[in-house]
Amino acid sequence: MNGKMKAAVLVNLKQIEIQEMDIPAPAADEALIRVKAVGLCGSDVHYYEHGKIGPYVVEKPIILGHEAAGEIVALGSGVRHLNVGQRVTIEPGVTCGRCEHCKSGRYNLCPEVRFLATPPHDGAFCEYIAIRADFLYPIPDHMSYERAALIEPFSVGLHAVRRGKLQPGETVVIMGMGPIGMLAIAAAKAAGAQRIIGVDMESFRLEKALLMGATHTVNLRDEDAVQAIERITGGRKADLAIETAGNGRAAQNALASVRRGGRVVLVGLPPQNETALSIPYIVDNEIDMYGVFRYHNTYPTGVELLSGDSIDLEPIITDYMSLDETAAAFEKAIHEKNSTLKIVIRP
Amino acid sequence: MNGKMKAAVLVNLKQIEIQEMDIPAPAADEALIRVKAVGLCGSDVHYYEHGKIGPYVVEKPIILGHEAAGEIVALGSGVRHLNVGQRVTIEPGVTCGRCEHCKSGRYNLCPEVRFLATPPHDGAFCEYIAIRADFLYPIPDHMSYERAALIEPFSVGLHAVRRGKLQPGETVVIMGMGPIGMLAIAAAKAAGAQRIIGVDMESFRLEKALLMGATHTVNLRDEDAVQAIERITGGRKADLAIETAGNGRAAQNALASVRRGGRVVLVGLPPQNETALSIPYIVDNEIDMYGVFRYHNTYPTGVELLSGDSIDLEPIITDYMSLDETAAAFEKAIHEKNSTLKIVIRP
Amino acid sequence: MNGKMKAAVLVNLKQIEIQEMDIPAPAADEALIRVKAVGLCGSDVHYYEHGKIGPYVVEKPIILGHEAAGEIVALGSGVRHLNVGQRVTIEPGVTCGRCEHCKSGRYNLCPEVRFLATPPHDGAFCEYIAIRADFLYPIPDHMSYERAALIEPFSVGLHAVRRGKLQPGETVVIMGMGPIGMLAIAAAKAAGAQRIIGVDMESFRLEKALLMGATHTVNLRDEDAVQAIERITGGRKADLAIETAGNGRAAQNALASVRRGGRVVLVGLPPQNETALSIPYIVDNEIDMYGVFRYHNTYPTGVELLSGDSIDLEPIITDYMSLDETAAAFEKAIHEKNSTLKIVIRP
Amino acid sequence: MNGKMKAAVLVNLKQIEIQEMDIPAPAADEALIRVKAVGLCGSDVHYYEHGKIGPYVVEKPIILGHEAAGEIVALGSGVRHLNVGQRVTIEPGVTCGRCEHCKSGRYNLCPEVRFLATPPHDGAFCEYIAIRADFLYPIPDHMSYERAALIEPFSVGLHAVRRGKLQPGETVVIMGMGPIGMLAIAAAKAAGAQRIIGVDMESFRLEKALLMGATHTVNLRDEDAVQAIERITGGRKADLAIETAGNGRAAQNALASVRRGGRVVLVGLPPQNETALSIPYIVDNEIDMYGVFRYHNTYPTGVELLSGDSIDLEPIITDYMSLDETAAAFEKAIHEKNSTLKIVIRP
Repeated sequence: MNGKMKAAVLVNLKQIEIQEMDIPAPAADEALIRVKAVGLCGSDVHYYEHGKIGPYVVEKPIILGHEAAGEIVALGSGVRHLNVGQRVTIEPGVTCGRCEHCKSGRYNLCPEVRFLATPPHDGAFCEYIAIRADFLYPIPDHMSYERAALIEPFSVGLHAVRRGKLQPGETVVIMGMGPIGMLAIAAAKAAGAQRIIGVDMESFRLEKALLMGATHTVNLRDEDAVQAIERITGGRKADLAIETAGNGRAAQNALASVRRGGRVVLVGLPPQNETALSIPYIVDNEIDMYGVFRYHNTYPTGVELLSGDSIDLEPIITDYMSLDETAAAFEKAIHEKNSTLKIVIRP
Repeated sequence: MNGKMKAAVLVNLKQIEIQEMDIPAPAADEALIRVKAVGLCGSDVHYYEHGKIGPYVVEKPIILGHEAAGEIVALGSGVRHLNVGQRVTIEPGVTCGRCEHCKSGRYNLCPEVRFLATPPHDGAFCEYIAIRADFLYPIPDHMSYERAALIEPFSVGLHAVRRGKLQPGETVVIMGMGPIGMLAIAAAKAAGAQRIIGVDMESFRLEKALLMGATHTVNLRDEDAVQAIERITGGRKADLAIETAGNGRAAQNALASVRRGGRVVLVGLPPQNETALSIPYIVDNEIDMYGVFRYHNTYPTGVELLSGDSIDLEPIITDYMSLDETAAAFEKAIHEKNSTLKIVIRP
Repeated sequence: MNGKMKAAVLVNLKQIEIQEMDIPAPAADEALIRVKAVGLCGSDVHYYEHGKIGPYVVEKPIILGHEAAGEIVALGSGVRHLNVGQRVTIEPGVTCGRCEHCKSGRYNLCPEVRFLATPPHDGAFCEYIAIRADFLYPIPDHMSYERAALIEPFSVGLHAVRRGKLQPGETVVIMGMGPIGMLAIAAAKAAGAQRIIGVDMESFRLEKALLMGATHTVNLRDEDAVQAIERITGGRKADLAIETAGNGRAAQNALASVRRGGRVVLVGLPPQNETALSIPYIVDNEIDMYGVFRYHNTYPTGVELLSGDSIDLEPIITDYMSLDETAAAFEKAIHEKNSTLKIVIRP
Repeated sequence: MNGKMKAAVLVNLKQIEIQEMDIPAPAADEALIRVKAVGLCGSDVHYYEHGKIGPYVVEKPIILGHEAAGEIVALGSGVRHLNVGQRVTIEPGVTCGRCEHCKSGRYNLCPEVRFLATPPHDGAFCEYIAIRADFLYPIPDHMSYERAALIEPFSVGLHAVRRGKLQPGETVVIMGMGPIGMLAIAAAKAAGAQRIIGVDMESFRLEKALLMGATHTVNLRDEDAVQAIERITGGRKADLAIETAGNGRAAQNALASVRRGGRVVLVGLPPQNETALSIPYIVDNEIDMYGVFRYHNTYPTGVELLSGDSIDLEPIITDYMSLDETAAAFEKAIHEKNSTLKIVIRP
């Protein structure tokens, strides 16, 4: 498929331009996707504002965006299991399939991964992208592209819930009610959690959390997190805590909020490298603590779970914008934190 | 069995007296044991010197010692599965069997546990003790009482290796070459670890570590732990690190010494409550971190594994002393750290 | 609490009498329960008709019934964590807490278990029973005693789902739509199964299955089970099959209905000892097959999961009868199989 | 690398010819290997005699042999992590890396696998083979090529031990003392099994089993397998049974020889499709039964475990032969079963 397309390119810090460029040609094992919906993620905003995340540095103009879904418009010569016209969601990390991590099933740890919108790889704030066909997953006709795009952050929640070995009937605390925390609520609900306690400082977010399936919320402006969790659980504390807020205090609270023999999942990255954690608490109570980096083997499950109507994602989508409005979307995400959760771009 | 026995009683801080007292009468579900060997543990020394460990405070005279083996000399009326004259090792924590932790198999977390030599419960530095019969495990004729007594600290090592999901062929780092670290080496060897790296500051201990089965040692006076582990593993780092030293720096080293997707087991209790740990390292590398508190379901396995001759425990027993010498044993443990590992009392 | 009570006693094969007997006195660690609801189970019916199940033989008059809930009316002297007046559900197997199986958490394998209504132990078709207090679980005010009684068969379903490692989003097939199969549906739904396929020969039961949460049903009179499952899953087959029908053909179908790498849980006991199973299918597809015997550690979870309203149990309760009608209830269960699922006796 | 090589080609049933053919050219992601040692496997013999195994049919001349090791003599243009001259062992199943099974870590279930010497793919009874570089594993200088070749059947044993969740100190029974059974002994020993009971009908093999690490053997000509296991274990039975004999009776014995809560691993394929197994035994005792098909993620571990000298493989290598003797090797394997275990061809 020849021709030109529009793309939202980050040309400098906080400077996004709509550029015209060639539509990419899919390789033999790739498909070309007409992008229909792309969520704006906190990591996109971080690159926009700071030009880097940890070791990943934006060194030349880059297209951001990695939460994407669209329609197949062309197939590479070797792709047999998909068809032009299929509606698909896109798993954005293309892994090598050959290293020890890929072979052991934890392909999220693949050192050769090419991840959309992680420098130097371009992302999906554009009209077309080519991507390896085995990272495309057909979606049902009745699933919207916006919902399909959110399978990406939902995957983080699902992976957190799996790593945390959440069992039906358990009580889970989730620190940080940003989109990842919200979708961890959805994943916990899907896995049968009985009590889901959302913790944040913003009542705007806590109200949304209830819509997503939280059974209780704790506003840190009003109450100490651990005391609140003890109150809600009758002193028993939580079976599992998932930290998505990305600050050290939240990690400390997550640890202190789980019962003897409980589990803690760390998803959020605090700005500083070190956080003071209580080893005696971990040892005396035989806590398990699990790091979570992205996800693996979540997309087929994500499509299944979001195919029904028991999980509502609408509450977290606060804005729909066009590709031309991408720059405005980033500014909105930065400056209207108290009314914005997930912005979806529809190219 | 009526009569009197001798016991080594801690009557004040750093003051142990040999006292005469009644031989205890076993309850219906207990057996009376003629104590034959008792290891002196670091926790015993801590009570001797400081009078408390965390929430456990010595408030009246106490008999210390919980690593014990002996011979059954009398049985309570309800005990059917044991016989007078059997040689047994003693699991020192008598749990309730009825709480959620006991019922789920993690009975080490039982809040009702009565643990030998943990205040207010007396221990085994005496001639006879009565203990619930289901915590006694017959040992083979050829196993010495000293070896049988060390199944207690070996259990900590075994539980650490289990919690750490050690797989045959893996590389494990063990921080701290005290008796627990040494017996974690033994447990790792039994579980098929291919490379076992012992880390300590004392060459005396590191030499013993090699006798116990360590394949490599690192002396922290000579080399940075993490650099040494990278050197030994060709840059790959360890699959599993077990921290037994009980200090924050060792916990930091344990975390930094494991590969992407690796596991860390925390056994040692640092003196301070908080330790600065790198959450980004845990998250980016999807590390699992497991607390270890004592052990559960290790004794039958311990008896099995120590029944053969592939695991040598002799290197860590540095002294054999009599019950009358108990006070001297504590002083030796405190003042001759560089030549003393495990002292065994033979009442 | 002194006095007399009524009990429905199986005095001979198919002969139940209402007898007056002493109200039992609770031991120190027991509570006395005023029985409020007891489900009639297939095993009760089997003892009623045949006088034995495998090695368990009715050799003297016995009170049947083990799916029970009631109100605490007296406490043994040692019971601290419960109160008179509390509404509770009863876990009917009192285990020793001291054998290797109890200590490892699989207490359902305890050889010393005393299980209500398993000879020679009496059950709950009576006005009062005394039972060890750690097998009583308080229920919320809004949970009916009938619902609470059904936590017993629900526990079988929950244990099957746990043993089968059911993950959210998966497809599960359940063979046999008796009460256990129905409650396995409920448990699978609670654990996040996306497709739940119920298989039976009776349309009466299949209609109930849909009310319980099955997303698809297969009537064996109309269609081959494996072909139907291939049709429903687009050829992929199920991730997990749970066999509750208790016949060899159903076990064969369960095995043939799972995908490569799938799991099979066997709950039902076929009348004959041996069933022809395909080892090549198990080997080539690396199937896991798990036996299920009763359950362990399910009651707290059962209370949690049934405290909400997302799981409906009403569809399977077809009859409510009084203690005086117990004999009639057994006859109904035998002769009206096509309209009866679960009969609940309310003493 | 141009030129010609010799290969042993199965041109008809039981007819192997040494033919000259072109040395294969490695693709960009492959390496060319000078084959140094190839084990003769039972599946090779089966193709030689019967021309097929299940759905795999020899329809044109084929080179057999899949247990191979050799030296890298050329690299495809894209291979970075290996060097010419390196000594390597060869994992013979090249998988797609992109299907659900590959991505989940169970790549042995990949439907797209190309496995050496499984029709229509040629194997390694020849001088050179080209294979994808990520399936080559460097071996230490001191490891012989013969030992390195046997990592293939050792992988089956290791995978069986992993699937069977063997824990240090356990008792394992292995049915069938062919090479796979023998290497399952080696794997069980590496994993810390305390008692390893080998069962077979040939004293020649049982003597070898003791050299491989079996602690006990049972000759079926002398004693019933289950009775013998009860005798050896003092009535307790085994924790794990691994069936490698490939007959239904052995599978029945495997099941009957495990304790309550025990596990059974099925590796061998019986000639008939169906085997009568006792579902009541599986259910009442909550047995786990696991199918094993080939292996995954075993080669790095295999190289590690066989790099030391604690596992001896020599006892099972009964013959070393040249490539020209390949036909004779097959005849020997068929006609001298009582003196032949593993024949290694050295091209």
